[in-house]
Amino acid sequence: KTNVDCMTSNRIVRLPGLIDVHVHLREPGATHKEDFASGTAAALAGGITMVGVMPNTSPAITDHPSFLLAQKLARLGARCDYGLYVGAAAENSIDLANIGPMAMGLKMYLNDTFTTLRMDNVCIWQKHVENWPHHLPLVAHAEGRTTAAILFLAKMFDRPIHICHVARKEEIEMVRLAKESGMSVTCEVAPHHLFLTSDDLEVIGHGKGQVRPVLSSQEDQNALWENMDIIDCFATDHAPHTVEEKESANPPPGFPGLETMLPLLLTAVNDGRLTMEDIVDRLYNNPRRIFGLPEQRDTYIEVDMDHVWTLPKAMTFTKSKWTPFAGRKVKGQLRRVVLRGGVAFIDGQVLVPPGFGHDIRSIPEGILFPAATKKHVSNVGPVPTIRPLAVQVPPSSAPL
Amino acid sequence: KTNVDCMTSNRIVRLPGLIDVHVHLREPGATHKEDFASGTAAALAGGITMVGVMPNTSPAITDHPSFLLAQKLARLGARCDYGLYVGAAAENSIDLANIGPMAMGLKMYLNDTFTTLRMDNVCIWQKHVENWPHHLPLVAHAEGRTTAAILFLAKMFDRPIHICHVARKEEIEMVRLAKESGMSVTCEVAPHHLFLTSDDLEVIGHGKGQVRPVLSSQEDQNALWENMDIIDCFATDHAPHTVEEKESANPPPGFPGLETMLPLLLTAVNDGRLTMEDIVDRLYNNPRRIFGLPEQRDTYIEVDMDHVWTLPKAMTFTKSKWTPFAGRKVKGQLRRVVLRGGVAFIDGQVLVPPGFGHDIRSIPEGILFPAATKKHVSNVGPVPTIRPLAVQVPPSSAPL
Ligand SMILES: [Zn+2]
Ligand SMILES: [Zn+2]
Ligand SMILES: [Zn+2]
Ligand SMILES: [Zn+2]
Ligand SMILES: [Zn+2]
Ligand SMILES: [Zn+2]
Ligand SMILES: [Zn+2]
Ligand SMILES: [Zn+2]
Repeated sequence: KTNVDCMTSNRIVRLPGLIDVHVHLREPGATHKEDFASGTAAALAGGITMVGVMPNTSPAITDHPSFLLAQKLARLGARCDYGLYVGAAAENSIDLANIGPMAMGLKMYLNDTFTTLRMDNVCIWQKHVENWPHHLPLVAHAEGRTTAAILFLAKMFDRPIHICHVARKEEIEMVRLAKESGMSVTCEVAPHHLFLTSDDLEVIGHGKGQVRPVLSSQEDQNALWENMDIIDCFATDHAPHTVEEKESANPPPGFPGLETMLPLLLTAVNDGRLTMEDIVDRLYNNPRRIFGLPEQRDTYIEVDMDHVWTLPKAMTFTKSKWTPFAGRKVKGQLRRVVLRGGVAFIDGQVLVPPGFGHDIRSIPEGILFPAATKKHVSNVGPVPTIRPLAVQVPPSSAPL
Repeated sequence: KTNVDCMTSNRIVRLPGLIDVHVHLREPGATHKEDFASGTAAALAGGITMVGVMPNTSPAITDHPSFLLAQKLARLGARCDYGLYVGAAAENSIDLANIGPMAMGLKMYLNDTFTTLRMDNVCIWQKHVENWPHHLPLVAHAEGRTTAAILFLAKMFDRPIHICHVARKEEIEMVRLAKESGMSVTCEVAPHHLFLTSDDLEVIGHGKGQVRPVLSSQEDQNALWENMDIIDCFATDHAPHTVEEKESANPPPGFPGLETMLPLLLTAVNDGRLTMEDIVDRLYNNPRRIFGLPEQRDTYIEVDMDHVWTLPKAMTFTKSKWTPFAGRKVKGQLRRVVLRGGVAFIDGQVLVPPGFGHDIRSIPEGILFPAATKKHVSNVGPVPTIRPLAVQVPPSSAPL
């Protein structure tokens, strides 16, 4: 639905609240980089009303005590709705299966990572693929040949799987093979892989430009755009670090992304490279279907399609005071976010406090909602009907 | 069939000529390490009458000119029968498909290797999996997660595949999953992975003990023995280097193995860990079936099951004058090899000259033999009937 701003005659478009299934909010353990309050403020400032929060914190979220800690911190800190992932480790597949229904999904780190989440041995992967409840989301960081390897296990166990941040030609082509063979595989792509290549490292800097998967070649990027039809989700992989850390001798990999994704995607719509429907599918319909996410009642965002601006050196709400997109001219801007009936963000201001967000796997007021209503999570079917969370609608601070 | 030696009362057992589908004979390019004449002498001294010769020579065998060179050198040098592999590279999948019927099979190096045979990108693998003739042998060096990755491609293209030198628990378990799912996958195991572990590196030396796949843990070795039922072939992966090279600061990976495999396996039979049938299946029936190999008429070997001896510091015929098995007590020894009716080896002497060997994919005297007679090379079916090479039987120099 498009309206026109009487003051500017800009086109104003209303979209559902966006869902980013892949963010790192650094709490517990590294709240100097980000925390639930700052990260979810950044989410709202990016038009995102629901986030999937990754478990590679300190401690990592790999068992009941750490999951309870994350639940508590999120409940106190989050301004938007959220789900919490648990992380696969060497010996926790049975434990995690019990936590499953309370989690956003299970994250498997199959390439280089740190701490207890490192799993070098395919036998360990297999235990998780076998033991994680069949119809709860299983997501994998699996680069290059590792994409093919985890797809083999998923095939052998008829196990739906979601591949994180597909970045290379070989990865998206393996996903295509799997989809065409009828496998229940889905995937996400991060904006930085759609809008940056290794050529941009000269400007960003080779240290600051560290990210996993790395910024790849123009050929790899082209393959992502050419395979847009099989990309199920966009997800920021928001991975904040301080400027000091990114400029150090041994910079940690990762980019902030929550506040820049939407203007980049709106620019692509203005450039004719994407449609609004592409965005809504990949940031709302498909995330809901794949992850079995509830409807957020009376929730939407409004964007100004015609506002031209330049991405600044750092965005407003994330603690990560830099962006690899600094200086990029974009066309399209978030104006307003309405979350469960209340204005959560308007014209650069976040209006909701820490604690306003809900855990999407909680069961408020005694109403159950199923994580997924279909036996197999399909990668082509319609959105299953999921009963909405029954929540009290707060008084709208800015009635439409 | 068991006879008793009148002189010693030792049991003498006759077996088919053994087939080793995986050897490196270093010609062309590194004949100081090995050549067709020395390597096939070592084969005969190991009871092996047919070898599959790997293409990672210098030049690598990756196109018509290099294949013709290898054919010529093998024809002049080989004392036993042989097939020649071609090697997958970045840009040669169409070319190789044409060479296919003349080759032992296509070798894909999917882990670290050197020269043009390195293929880091799954898109390149895919081209070979798609273009190599469907019913000719395709073999892969694919360690760890790479086993799962290549099995995914094989599954997607319904492509029979043979996994080289399976060495780890995770590898053999992936092969088991694939077989149990009905895939046409087969595999081989090298004697050094059955009879050595990383614990043996203290004695062998960490430099000399370099081999790919590496000597692994006792747990990995146990997994191989526990999965013996799905191990299709034994193959030496005979990879000779000089002692000087192996003792250098940067030792190349690889062990000689042609002359030590048989006594090690006969010892395992004497120890009750294997049966003679296990050996004949994995060094004769299954290689013939998987690789579509011709019968060698009037060819067999005789072993003394009771002779106890100690493997020396170096074996007789390979140019690689060391062995990782030096000092190992074994029970069982090769006495005689009869190849196409003539004695090719007897009591430590090789009697056939360079050039005696035949190319198993040549078409002698106008008689065609099909590489494989079944549409799908099955991993469970019986040995297909393959017409033998019609060759002149030389006069037997030692009639039975
Ligand atoms: Zn990741
Ligand atoms: Zn991530
Ligand atoms: Zn404007
Ligand atoms: Zn299922
Ligand atoms: Zn190999
Ligand atoms: Zn080899
Ligand atoms: Zn004796
Ligand atoms: Zn087939």
